Amino acid sequence: MSNLEEALELDRRWSMVSRRSLFELPAGLIYLDGNPLGPPLRGLADNVGAAVREWSTHLISGWFGTDGRDGWVGLPERVGSRLEPILGAAPGSVVACDSTTVNLFKAVQAACDLRPGDLLTDSGNFPTNLYALAGIAHSRGRRLVVVEPESIENAIDSSVGVVSVTQVDFRSGRLHDLGSITQRVHEAGGVAVWDLSHTAGAMPIDLASNDVDLAVGCGYKYLNGGPGAPAYMYVRPDLVAEVRNPIAGWFGHRRPFDFSPEFLPDDGVGRMRVGTPHILSLVALDAALEVFADLDLADLRAASQSLTGFFIELLDRELGSLLEIITPRDSDLRGSQVSIRLPRADKLIESLAAAGVTGDFRNPDVARFGFSALFNTHEEVVRAVSEISAALGR
Amino acid sequence: MSNLEEALELDRRWSMVSRRSLFELPAGLIYLDGNPLGPPLRGLADNVGAAVREWSTHLISGWFGTDGRDGWVGLPERVGSRLEPILGAAPGSVVACDSTTVNLFKAVQAACDLRPGDLLTDSGNFPTNLYALAGIAHSRGRRLVVVEPESIENAIDSSVGVVSVTQVDFRSGRLHDLGSITQRVHEAGGVAVWDLSHTAGAMPIDLASNDVDLAVGCGYKYLNGGPGAPAYMYVRPDLVAEVRNPIAGWFGHRRPFDFSPEFLPDDGVGRMRVGTPHILSLVALDAALEVFADLDLADLRAASQSLTGFFIELLDRELGSLLEIITPRDSDLRGSQVSIRLPRADKLIESLAAAGVTGDFRNPDVARFGFSALFNTHEEVVRAVSEISAALGR
Repeated sequence: MSNLEEALELDRRWSMVSRRSLFELPAGLIYLDGNPLGPPLRGLADNVGAAVREWSTHLISGWFGTDGRDGWVGLPERVGSRLEPILGAAPGSVVACDSTTVNLFKAVQAACDLRPGDLLTDSGNFPTNLYALAGIAHSRGRRLVVVEPESIENAIDSSVGVVSVTQVDFRSGRLHDLGSITQRVHEAGGVAVWDLSHTAGAMPIDLASNDVDLAVGCGYKYLNGGPGAPAYMYVRPDLVAEVRNPIAGWFGHRRPFDFSPEFLPDDGVGRMRVGTPHILSLVALDAALEVFADLDLADLRAASQSLTGFFIELLDRELGSLLEIITPRDSDLRGSQVSIRLPRADKLIESLAAAGVTGDFRNPDVARFGFSALFNTHEEVVRAVSEISAALGR
Repeated sequence: MSNLEEALELDRRWSMVSRRSLFELPAGLIYLDGNPLGPPLRGLADNVGAAVREWSTHLISGWFGTDGRDGWVGLPERVGSRLEPILGAAPGSVVACDSTTVNLFKAVQAACDLRPGDLLTDSGNFPTNLYALAGIAHSRGRRLVVVEPESIENAIDSSVGVVSVTQVDFRSGRLHDLGSITQRVHEAGGVAVWDLSHTAGAMPIDLASNDVDLAVGCGYKYLNGGPGAPAYMYVRPDLVAEVRNPIAGWFGHRRPFDFSPEFLPDDGVGRMRVGTPHILSLVALDAALEVFADLDLADLRAASQSLTGFFIELLDRELGSLLEIITPRDSDLRGSQVSIRLPRADKLIESLAAAGVTGDFRNPDVARFGFSALFNTHEEVVRAVSEISAALGR
């Protein structure tokens, strides 16, 4: 069986996951870059256009619901409720707001209030997370301990107050074990703050059953919410009453429109909101999440593993030892991307772009390919590997 | 001359300021609520629709400019440069990002780093500002002193490190003197952080010539950027090198796309950015600011003073002592709103809404009417006052 025949068979096998026809993607482009920015759903301009019409029609009263219309004021919670099944979170435990970094800041500051001790992370964490953590450590006079990704579990001991890691390493695609790390953090008496930016929308996440304390993540990667889509925030329901948002703002107030001088935090995760939500961006994220409504996330994960596994297999077959694949070959240990280390990875990505394959380059020597089983196909994998071979002169 | 004749003459007098035809407003509605949410410009859905098309066409490369197209990555600065003349700020000193409350948090935390001492504000500050300030005071172990709005200048002494006020009192419409308060703060050795949410887009503001240290403000009031439009941040150019953003994030980094583990803040006000900008919301704000490009802000202010003055005059004429106008009668001492205190102000606002006049109610007894000279007319003032008279049974 040829590579292509095999690909077509695998695409049939996972056809119940594919939502390709719902996405607006340039014809002929093989987009292996949905991890930094997912594509828009078809008709998304209409969703946002409708929001602009709501604005011109309802003006200030658009914030509040009327005549069967939901007001904008509840949109962060409504988007949160769409995210809850994607994150394995209980109803009412997720809210959409701000950017991922702002949310991480709030979550880690809140975690620091709950526990003394060091901040612990790994060097594979996304740079913005490292910056935010270093800033917090500086302002609170705490030590920030940064270990190698492989060492994070062993580094968790009673000196650690807050552990904050991103579930998938953006460079290598290595997947941390959310359950075992969280358990270890709890055994050591610490608080676990997860960043789910590189996993949500690509695989099931079980925040509730793993007792995760706080989590944040981004709306524009596998969730396809658009450039700079608002982020989200999760707080464990039985912890939320103790959690203090360091950025107290009116949308975190129990009754924002009382305009009372005293800050009374919302009872639930709503307390992690701050200022007025960015409605037009939030409307796009809301619409994008619709695609997950009837999706089995276990199937989505299996299809993603099939795509990344097939990509690795073909790279091995076609290019053998020419490439160093730095993503784990055990599919349970990787996210939904495959990264290759090679000299002049930037040149490879440029050549591929010219050939209609989008991947990306990460300093200094990584070529990275993200796979979303919602719109990528095994057939695209075959064509991508063939273009990689051509670009490398094979 | 009848009220209406007078109104029409005043509308002719200020016709060079009116941009009414550019706005999408429901026919017949008298919208005196552009201060909490300005209306959209006509064609704004097309601007946002074009941004969605850019997203589907360029995908990840949309962040960077190509072929004469500006990348999204520079949008916060481009919006900032449109805001600079509106704020009287030097080129490169303003950036659009986050929400007003998040920006206030960053600005006040940065100010606290620059100076020890109390935080000072006034009780007329917007509630979210009071919440944010109280939260900062709590976490930094500082005293937050809240005085009556009239007492703010006298309360500034050497015990004060940071003074943070909003230029216009959202309830009364009273205008603080930006120049004299800033000067007094500096004489006392403090740092002045202004919130311009209720003034920007309604009158000229002279941040640079008044030596303001830091300022923030909102994009959705007189700037008409849409529900939850991104906010903005100003830092005095000769101060910026000393200013530390408490929320270190990759968009505040000098070279975000190097993905370096060390945080190196941007040289300028860009260091106050945090996470990925909310592009769709930012595109709407960018388009909305176009309306200010050829506008004389002194004329805009004079037209606004004429509108609010005419409204007060007609209220006096029609309703005499029946109403307590809590907005200063001296037009140099007020913003672009008029507030009335009366029992059951909520009922008045409801009746007016039913009659096609939008004002708003602020707890417990204030009916508030905002005027934007960009789209409100003196003719509307006549009709609004007549509806107020009718609603009050006169």
